[in-house]
Order: sequence, then structure tokens, then C-alpha cells
Amino acid sequence: MQEARHLQQIQPSYIREILAAATAEGVISLAGGLPASDGFPLSLMAESIAQLPNTPALFQYGETAGYRPLLAYLEEHYQVAPTHRMLVCSGSQQGLDIIARAFLNPGDGVAMEAPCYPGALQVFAMATACIHTVQQQATGPNLGELEALFASGKVKLFYAVPDFHNPTGISWTLETRKQVAALCRQYGVALVEDAPYRELRFAGEALPLVASFCPECSLVLRSFSKVSTPGLRLGVLSAPEDWLAPLIKIKQASDLHSSLPIQALLLDLIAHPQFPTHIQQLCQMYSGRYQALASALSESLGRRCEFEPVKGGMFIWLKLPGFDPLTVAKAALSKGVAIVPANAFYPNDTAPDSAIRLNFSHEAPDTLRTAVRRLASALV
Amino acid sequence: MQEARHLQQIQPSYIREILAAATAEGVISLAGGLPASDGFPLSLMAESIAQLPNTPALFQYGETAGYRPLLAYLEEHYQVAPTHRMLVCSGSQQGLDIIARAFLNPGDGVAMEAPCYPGALQVFAMATACIHTVQQQATGPNLGELEALFASGKVKLFYAVPDFHNPTGISWTLETRKQVAALCRQYGVALVEDAPYRELRFAGEALPLVASFCPECSLVLRSFSKVSTPGLRLGVLSAPEDWLAPLIKIKQASDLHSSLPIQALLLDLIAHPQFPTHIQQLCQMYSGRYQALASALSESLGRRCEFEPVKGGMFIWLKLPGFDPLTVAKAALSKGVAIVPANAFYPNDTAPDSAIRLNFSHEAPDTLRTAVRRLASALV
Repeated sequence: MQEARHLQQIQPSYIREILAAATAEGVISLAGGLPASDGFPLSLMAESIAQLPNTPALFQYGETAGYRPLLAYLEEHYQVAPTHRMLVCSGSQQGLDIIARAFLNPGDGVAMEAPCYPGALQVFAMATACIHTVQQQATGPNLGELEALFASGKVKLFYAVPDFHNPTGISWTLETRKQVAALCRQYGVALVEDAPYRELRFAGEALPLVASFCPECSLVLRSFSKVSTPGLRLGVLSAPEDWLAPLIKIKQASDLHSSLPIQALLLDLIAHPQFPTHIQQLCQMYSGRYQALASALSESLGRRCEFEPVKGGMFIWLKLPGFDPLTVAKAALSKGVAIVPANAFYPNDTAPDSAIRLNFSHEAPDTLRTAVRRLASALV
Repeated sequence: MQEARHLQQIQPSYIREILAAATAEGVISLAGGLPASDGFPLSLMAESIAQLPNTPALFQYGETAGYRPLLAYLEEHYQVAPTHRMLVCSGSQQGLDIIARAFLNPGDGVAMEAPCYPGALQVFAMATACIHTVQQQATGPNLGELEALFASGKVKLFYAVPDFHNPTGISWTLETRKQVAALCRQYGVALVEDAPYRELRFAGEALPLVASFCPECSLVLRSFSKVSTPGLRLGVLSAPEDWLAPLIKIKQASDLHSSLPIQALLLDLIAHPQFPTHIQQLCQMYSGRYQALASALSESLGRRCEFEPVKGGMFIWLKLPGFDPLTVAKAALSKGVAIVPANAFYPNDTAPDSAIRLNFSHEAPDTLRTAVRRLASALV
């Protein structure tokens, strides 16, 4: 049977292909966006996990919007705008897919910074949206380009990752946040703020969500994969109350609701008195891994590479002037290290910059150093 | 922001609306498709649940197709055709949504028996498919009608629930199974066999899956909601190997993969030496509840109602000649019992028959008898 037309342009995620290759014996993978398995807060979860069978109601069908006690807790503690309502999703990836299905008609315009998160490219391509990219700068999106695009009337949604962007690690300045919010308001564009890395800050001050400056035209995606564990598959989507009905319709038709025992576990975890300490420890761990990777890159590659320092998140965006990123990725894999070439982060796999994405959250400092030596040997 | 056009025709599921009303204090609900909470195999799961934190790998990102040991077990024990491959889904509802998104173009034809499962109507409407219904008889679909429809060339998929159909409880005869398979082969129609109630047989002999007679043009959806617990949200989809790639693409873009710890729990449960005994006990319990409901209906309503006996599943399809089903549903709710009117099981909410669906799996026999007394008092 032939696949549907809207799928025929879409290749399976290159990143996930590399992830598969990266599991080969002896390969060090800096390719994924995997959190550190040794940083999982399993000890904080063990008691709740063991108690689950004592609450049969958690194993019954539940409400589409989510487990009510979890929603109530998030409303109070997760900077949700007072005018927003929430929907629990199976990871923020699902939240994004639900937004696209709820609001996009074929050909509708979606703006994104380039380079951009491949999972979002996939979702919007599947919705047969028309994707417009805006150049990313050290402060956030190029505002002149963004305004020109908004003014053209072609854009319905602006998808953004303002905290520790994937793949570049860049965080928008406060001024950029306010200006983007003002532009969304002025031109009637809905902001989709994806914030999976927001809590992974190891330097500098947290800035407000962009959505806090334009809650009436924003949807916010929060992921728990990075601060709890990805295997749970939970995230939460918040949106103005009158935008919730179509989101709920899609969630209902697509899987009725997310796993209830898992939602109850997540609530116990994020409400645990030791949870803030867990986040601090996680950030310290990632800070150490980032420093190890950054130092090794400077030492081994010197002037052959360039990268902006990051203050959090999981990635270094390594520019390698004069190298072809796909060739680098293949050569690196042959030397036993997996990375993702810039191509994966642009529509149509065409990258204007010679860059690769390196993950620093998953491997220990020594392994990161070995990986950099292998990468350097691939660049001769 | 306006919802996408493909959503504008779709009302939130009437059943789930009723489920919400049905949770009001004092209302007995025969409206849902809820398994018995007191039949959940939690004691068989407790040990595995407690052990989960000892395997951090289960909390990391996993493969899109599913947890490999679970897939391997299912391949061996779940009547999967040798030429099929599997994809673990967040409930078989998600499997159905993924099939529709993977293979349907706008306007493609989908055949279903009428009355039909509202969750399937929702999915196919959302895919902007063209839905064709075929009358259901005591043996299965009207084969003459089905062949005429297939011969018209208008149908790409035939969605079917051959075991203990929702809402009617009817199971197809062996002869019908073979003939439907032959028709699918002859006319190049893909069969989507949804089998959530298959294991809930309390009388008669199990018959082969329809897909076993035409595996090369079948997709099979198996749910674990009825035999384990619905809160887990797990099902599995199997399809010919060369149909799997588009299904995987959709699953990946929509939520990356289903919860890993939950998949590991399910594997431990279905491989538990006591699991077959659990299924037997569940069927005995449902048999008792069915008998209680059936007897109470005959006693209280006598000739005002008609229904076919069922040999399993969760539902009685109660015909009430001369009554308007929506009026009955409202009157019943005012007397403290929730049921679903026939309208919910037809495209466009227009029911040709005066019938209501009654669930017998969720409530104890005494409660079922009380519910029938309330229903009878609403029918005066």
C-alpha cells in the first residue's frame, strides 16, 4: 500500500538513523539528545513506583486533558499564564504534533529559526505547512527578517526554542524576548514556545518565558524528559483557554490520554522536597561535562573550529570552516564517534554552514575527551 | 486562532462527554467501555513495578518500534503473521490514528460496519476520509453490500472489529471471516482488524483472526487495555513488513516512542505464569455480569426491548423499538443511569435504529440490576 502523499517528502529522522548506527559496539555517541542515565532521579521515584499498585484508579481510563492533581500542581508551580489551560502530552514532541494538527491547514506558513530542531521540521512537513526560516543570531532570531516575514502575512505560527536552542545552545536575550512577543501581538502570529532545556541552566540568570509577554497568543511546551527521565514520555502543553478545545479533540482521537500511572509518578517526583536539589546536581554534572568537551575541543582542534560558549542545555554547535558536515559525520563515525551534521537541522537537508552538533549531557568527561580525539583524527 | 478545517466537522466524542456527566455523584454509568477496576491484575504486576528503578536503561529514550524484548515476546505468542512486523502504540487508538495518517489521502474511501466504534469514526473523519458504511448482520457485515462497495473501487481500507464488536457485541462467523479476507484480496482493499475484545470470550470457541486468511493485505490492532489495564495505554499494531516504514515515520514524529517502563511492565505481566489464569477469571467475572444485566433487562423491560445474546466483550446492544435513543439517554441520565444512544455509533450522528449501548464489564451485578430498574423507570 502506498504511503500517504504528505509523507512522501519526509525521510525518517536522520538523527534517529545515526542514533541507531551509534549503538554499534565501541562507538561513542555525541549524536543524540540523551540526558545522562546516571543522573536519573530514580532514587526519588522508587517509593512512589512501589506504591503504584495500591491505587487501582490510576490504572483505569483517565481524562484526556491529564491527571487532575498533576495539572493542579503544574498550574501553581510551572509559570503557567493565568489565562492558559493545560494538556498533558506523551512528551513535548506529541504536544507539537497536536498543535500542528489542531491549527494548521495545508500550506499554512510556519516560521522557525534556522538551524532548527529536526523533530519540529518533521511535524510541520507532515502537516504540509509552508516552512519559512529566519536566521539565528547570538541574541536570538534576526528581528528585521522576522518582522518582514510576519508583515508579509504568510505566517500563522512561529516555532521557537528560546532557552538553550537545539542545536545551537543559544538563549535569547531579554530584549529579544520582549520584541518577539510584541511582533507576535502586532501581526497576529501565534508563538509556539518550546522549552525542553529551560531548567538545564548552569550559568547566568533565568529569563522569563517569551510567552509571559504575550500569553494571549502563545502556546508553551514543557518537557519532563530532561529533568525527570525521557522514558516516561511526558510533557505539558499550555494555551489560552479558548484554544484548548481543538487540542483536546486531537489528543482524544490520537491516544485518548497519556499513561496515568506515569503521570502520578511524575507528580510525586516534581513535588518531592529533594527535586530542586536533583535539578541543581544535574546542572552541575552537565556544567562539568560541558567544560570537559569545550576544553578538549579547544585543545585538540584549536583554530580549525569555532563555537559560542553556552550557559546550559545539552549541545555545542561546532563550526568547522571549510569542512563538509556530512563528510565529517561519516569520517567521524569511521573513527568511532557519532555526531550530527548541520544538514539535519535545515529544511531539505541543505545547510548553509559547515557545522556539527555535539551532545555533552550523555557521556562522562573522560569519554567526551576520547570522543574529541577521535573527531580530531577524522578531520585530517 | 481558528482550528484547522479538518477538525471543524468533528464534535468531541459524545461518549466521552457522557463519561464526564456519568461521574456525577450517584450516577451509575453503563456508558463507558471501562474494564472492571477490581479485575486489574495489579498483584501480578507489583513485583515488576517495584523492580523498575533497578533498570535505568528503561528510563532512557528508546526505539520507535517498541521495547525489543516485548516485540520478541509478542511475535512468538500473539498470533502475529510470520510476514508481519510490529509497532508498539500508546493504546490501539493510537495505532488506528497512525494507520490513517500513514496511508490515507484526503477523500480516500474507508469502509466500516454500521453501527461502528466512534473512536474510529473520529480518526477517519480527522483524516478527511470518505466513510462508507455496510450493514452489520448477526454473522458479520452484509457480504453483498461489502462486495458491491469494494467493486466500486471507492475503498482503500476496511476497518473491522470481528470479535465482540463495539457496540453490538457481534462476532463474525468463520465463513464470514474467510469471505471477507477473499474479498479484500480480490479487490485490493487493506483490512484493518481491530481486536481489543478478542480475549474476553466467556462462551463458544475462539475463531482465527480474519487477517490470518489475508496477512499480506491486513493490519492488526491488539489492545492491552482490556486484559491488563487501560491506564497503561499500550497496544500493538502489526502489518506486512513493507508497510511498516510509513507507520514508523508517523509514530516517530508524533511521540518518538511509547513509555519504556510501561512496556517492560506489560511484558512481565503477559509473560507471568499466572496471566492465563487472570484472563480466565476476568472472563468468568464478565460472564457473571453479562448474565446479571441480560436477566435484569428481560425481567424489567420484557417485550419493550430486544437484544442478541453475546459470547464475550463488554456490551449489550439494546434495541428499544419505538423509542428515540437520544431521548432515552437523557431520560435515563435524569434517573441516574448513563448509557450511550445509537447516534454516537453512526457517521453524522444519525441512527437508523432505536438502540442504546450498555456496558456490563465495569459494574458489579447488583449495581447492574439497579441500573436496569432506573432505565426501566425512564422508559415509561
